[in-house]
Amino acid sequence: MAPTTEALTAERILEATEEALRRHGPAKATVVDVARALGVSHGSVYRHFRTKAALREAVTKRWLDRTSQILAEIARPSSAPPPEALERWLSTLFTAKRHKAGDDPELFATYSVLLDEASAVVEEHVAELVDQLSDIIHRGVMEGDFMTVDGDSVATARAVFHATNRFHDPAYAHEWEKPGIEAEFSTVVTLVLRGLRRRID
Amino acid sequence: MAPTTEALTAERILEATEEALRRHGPAKATVVDVARALGVSHGSVYRHFRTKAALREAVTKRWLDRTSQILAEIARPSSAPPPEALERWLSTLFTAKRHKAGDDPELFATYSVLLDEASAVVEEHVAELVDQLSDIIHRGVMEGDFMTVDGDSVATARAVFHATNRFHDPAYAHEWEKPGIEAEFSTVVTLVLRGLRRRID
Repeated sequence: MAPTTEALTAERILEATEEALRRHGPAKATVVDVARALGVSHGSVYRHFRTKAALREAVTKRWLDRTSQILAEIARPSSAPPPEALERWLSTLFTAKRHKAGDDPELFATYSVLLDEASAVVEEHVAELVDQLSDIIHRGVMEGDFMTVDGDSVATARAVFHATNRFHDPAYAHEWEKPGIEAEFSTVVTLVLRGLRRRID
Repeated sequence: MAPTTEALTAERILEATEEALRRHGPAKATVVDVARALGVSHGSVYRHFRTKAALREAVTKRWLDRTSQILAEIARPSSAPPPEALERWLSTLFTAKRHKAGDDPELFATYSVLLDEASAVVEEHVAELVDQLSDIIHRGVMEGDFMTVDGDSVATARAVFHATNRFHDPAYAHEWEKPGIEAEFSTVVTLVLRGLRRRID
């Protein structure tokens, strides 16, 4: 049990929620489990998250944010030339997803259930990732490396995201440890990067 | 009940099996249902398909073959210039899958269960589709339209298949009636075709 003297922050509640989900699974974990682990009343938890659904959404968002925050660094203008940044962004996403799936399969299965419940949170997360990709692509156009499809960098970013979904969509997690998956990833990325390259001819 | 005077062919058994699956669902449909619909003994069915599993695999393969046979026509050398053939192949696949999912959702759900059971049949089907793509790409290289990734037309074909999986993998069937899906498809296809195009520079 955590010391009750520590201030009850939203972050501490979310940590305890993840732990409760890990222990009891998404079907059984309750707000009471979370409150008990923190040594507080469940009323104190509800002061931060007004419903159980809000708490589950917040913990799902936090899990997704861990990935998007790392990727945001790579998408920043100062990071690398756009083609290199794009390749690094895609391989960092694939690596992060593989780690989430492989290092803690139970927690990954738990979050897969939560993702199905929280479609608005997932849509927001995807929109954020597409925005990051779109920033890299737009910079690539400005610097003369890339050309978009139909002059639309957001639609082009979404196409890059869709074209690589085998390597980030949890629906394909069972493929991520198969032999040859890295070669497959690299072939798709090469094809996509070639598709973005500005043509001189 | 079908007339028993008609010869009991494998094709008639498979038709009756699909109908039994549609009526009773994949969990409940039995060989006895199939035999009864045909007015024959279940022994007669077993003379064509030695086990219930073999029958289910055969009906799954038949369902998948309906798509690959249409696509085989497009992949043939006489069909069209390779870039046009590739685009037509991908959009025909997407259209065929959308029809299967949208026109008869119950049968589609049934076959989704069967596909999970019959991983060898599915792998063979995917290998066949990748071969067709690889033929188009190889022809495109010969005619000066395309270049492969690392000189490997099979790996490149597989990458094209993977890059478009949002538009043929049944896991995405719930996306196929959303507004904007056709524009998304066309942006991915444009990006992939650009990636294949031989560069003059």
